[in-house]
Amino acid sequence: MPSPEQVRAVVDDYLASFSKKDRNAFLACFADDAEQVDPVPSPPNVGKEAIGQFWDNVAGMADKMEPLLDRVHVCGNEAAVVFTMNARSGEGGSAIDIVDIITVNDDGRIASLRAYWDPAAIRPLT
Amino acid sequence: MPSPEQVRAVVDDYLASFSKKDRNAFLACFADDAEQVDPVPSPPNVGKEAIGQFWDNVAGMADKMEPLLDRVHVCGNEAAVVFTMNARSGEGGSAIDIVDIITVNDDGRIASLRAYWDPAAIRPLT
Repeated sequence: MPSPEQVRAVVDDYLASFSKKDRNAFLACFADDAEQVDPVPSPPNVGKEAIGQFWDNVAGMADKMEPLLDRVHVCGNEAAVVFTMNARSGEGGSAIDIVDIITVNDDGRIASLRAYWDPAAIRPLT
Repeated sequence: MPSPEQVRAVVDDYLASFSKKDRNAFLACFADDAEQVDPVPSPPNVGKEAIGQFWDNVAGMADKMEPLLDRVHVCGNEAAVVFTMNARSGEGGSAIDIVDIITVNDDGRIASLRAYWDPAAIRPLT
């Protein structure tokens, strides 16, 4: 069982990887056999190759990503992460409210991530 | 698969059952074989008898419960519900920030509920 500090640390690393737009830092958060669903109910990305493709798709759509953290609730080896992702491209940009449910393994890596957000709720950044 | 409107409706009914302090309305939100974990990682309450005992414990601790909804993200047959629960007793009271992940069955009832909140984060109501 990871400690609450380990759970919180990988959540922070995960969010920071977006701010830094750092693919390696993003992938380093995940276990080798991690399962990621983003957003629910899309098919899972299993393993670092699939999760890396997800990163490439997301990072390719924005010059800059700014995750704005609202709350983290650490519960055992899980965390509920409530945040807003701002994505900027050129003069424009978009914002989306997200809840991630993250399960962390004994090594402090993400074993599963399920992201709850509604594509219809994406709004322009003002 | 329940419609987004069905998912949203049972979330609203669930929250309203606390406002009304209505045990029957609360239990009517759940499928007969529903599994409830509140908070993660406590052992699951399975079925209406166990979930009714959870209600009795919670309702016995407060004269009045006020769920303040922040966001609902409906994703397929699931919803992420971000809210704060204010509980008042006599002159005092407490508040706790919660994220519920709710899975809804084809009948529009809650099949599973996982509540993410940290007992150490309960704060006095001002």
